[in-house]
Amino acid sequence: MPTTYTNLDLVKQCDKFPYAQTEPETYAREVSAIYKFHVEGCSSVLGFMLPSIVQDFQWSSAWKVDHQRKTVLLCGASVGERDENMARTLAAERQRSHFKVLTGWRDELYPVYGPDHDVLVNVERAASPLFGVVTYGVQMTAYVKTDLGLQVWVPRRAATKQTYPGMLDDTVGGGISSGDAPFASVVREAAEEASFPADYVARNARCCGLVSYFDVRDQRAAPGTETGLLQPECMYVYDLEVPPDLVPRPNDNEAEDFRLLRLPELCAALRSGEFKTNCALVLIDFFVRHGIVTPEGERDYVEIVARLHRRLEFPCA
Amino acid sequence: MPTTYTNLDLVKQCDKFPYAQTEPETYAREVSAIYKFHVEGCSSVLGFMLPSIVQDFQWSSAWKVDHQRKTVLLCGASVGERDENMARTLAAERQRSHFKVLTGWRDELYPVYGPDHDVLVNVERAASPLFGVVTYGVQMTAYVKTDLGLQVWVPRRAATKQTYPGMLDDTVGGGISSGDAPFASVVREAAEEASFPADYVARNARCCGLVSYFDVRDQRAAPGTETGLLQPECMYVYDLEVPPDLVPRPNDNEAEDFRLLRLPELCAALRSGEFKTNCALVLIDFFVRHGIVTPEGERDYVEIVARLHRRLEFPCA
Repeated sequence: MPTTYTNLDLVKQCDKFPYAQTEPETYAREVSAIYKFHVEGCSSVLGFMLPSIVQDFQWSSAWKVDHQRKTVLLCGASVGERDENMARTLAAERQRSHFKVLTGWRDELYPVYGPDHDVLVNVERAASPLFGVVTYGVQMTAYVKTDLGLQVWVPRRAATKQTYPGMLDDTVGGGISSGDAPFASVVREAAEEASFPADYVARNARCCGLVSYFDVRDQRAAPGTETGLLQPECMYVYDLEVPPDLVPRPNDNEAEDFRLLRLPELCAALRSGEFKTNCALVLIDFFVRHGIVTPEGERDYVEIVARLHRRLEFPCA
Repeated sequence: MPTTYTNLDLVKQCDKFPYAQTEPETYAREVSAIYKFHVEGCSSVLGFMLPSIVQDFQWSSAWKVDHQRKTVLLCGASVGERDENMARTLAAERQRSHFKVLTGWRDELYPVYGPDHDVLVNVERAASPLFGVVTYGVQMTAYVKTDLGLQVWVPRRAATKQTYPGMLDDTVGGGISSGDAPFASVVREAAEEASFPADYVARNARCCGLVSYFDVRDQRAAPGTETGLLQPECMYVYDLEVPPDLVPRPNDNEAEDFRLLRLPELCAALRSGEFKTNCALVLIDFFVRHGIVTPEGERDYVEIVARLHRRLEFPCA
């Protein structure tokens, strides 16, 4: 690992799964070893599961596991049935305490979409990396235009957080639970995490795109849990320009404090790897959209912009 | 073809080549039929050539064509040698008048990059789709913030233009020739095509990312020329906010006139397919970045944003 991360190094820290077009052999080898997660009535592959995970699961009769074809099929003719089967299996696994990622149980469901953007099943958030399904989040960058140039409000994650403790973060962010919409989610998170007034955020936050990547979880994701789990993610990115007197304050236990960082400080923190890995991607995307990272200044510009917007192999929201 | 184009329809009009991850059989079939363009001393595939084009070319001894492995190799130990070999072959082909795309000869070179971002060879612009190499351009959207909301300056392409005559266009755009840089190119094109003062553009234009896609040329690209040619492209996108009194005027023969269009007019023109195909993509990207196309309002948001930023299979700038 380099001690000074380039922007491309940072992108590669999150976008780790091989690309079929450019690494056909590696891709074919990895994918052929992986189990494909399906649900009844839909032919699409919805997630990639590690063989070790599939072996260790205690599958009930609600599942059809085919070790020849390497498929894991969840039975159930309706979303309701599939949700019930999924919940029952995961509750049993949680009780059994075999999978370490389930110690981070959230009591929060994540939707899994089919090719027509319909929800096919809902999965406990902590279990989503076991199935390798696409998860969704919102990330908002709050910035101030000052005489010293653009500055960004950056929180440090609480040392007690389950994932990426103590690292720098985007101003506001969070996962999108089943039934939630991106904009509503970012407005609520902004109030909860940063004490931003909901009406101000609702009027001024602007969705500016999506950062997507295919991560392979390492130790930092949640210390002490399974590594190598596959985690394709889509983060809706929001910009919020705030006046100098609208200062974020921690409101829940997510952030320790907020600091207003100038560009050189932001770049230094990126270079030294202080940002939570996917937050670094959101900040690089912010820099690209704001003309701070430019084609003339960044030799890997084309590669970086493409990889910040990976087209995933699964149906998406 | 639908009479009302969705945003995803418009993206698909430019991003036509199959994706290996999601359409593995189609991709493998297409790629196995295609010849791979190489240059001496570099193992990377630099472009995709149609078999019919490879058959019809009159290859000199400066080329090694392997019909078994389906490769076309340009010899030459240095860029200078390869440029000379390429130029000589293309001059002969131009004289022979076999390839119709060469009737659009520009006397302008396009760079072809290797994996270290080094230029491996330069190709006459009109010939680039014969080799299926990545081409680069700049596109700038000039907009005005008014009481009626955001409005965009939209030119209509001259009826005499070789490509996409009479269609609507981005405010300013053009290809990036060998030796040129994106920002310098957009400043110059803005003066040439729209009479925007160079100093204003240099101070205020902002690079906001890259739109990339893999096109398969149809009849509209250049009426009367070969269709099916493969054209991977990278467009650096720029935003330029202009005051109401900074009005673009046609300065060369590129544009017939400029009109300031409001959002409903822009959307109507997109829906009816009036925009040049890749300009529609740049406008959709602009709408995404400015929060006009949103996750809540666009059902295909995730797919659209990813496909506006395709990672190409070739080394890039």
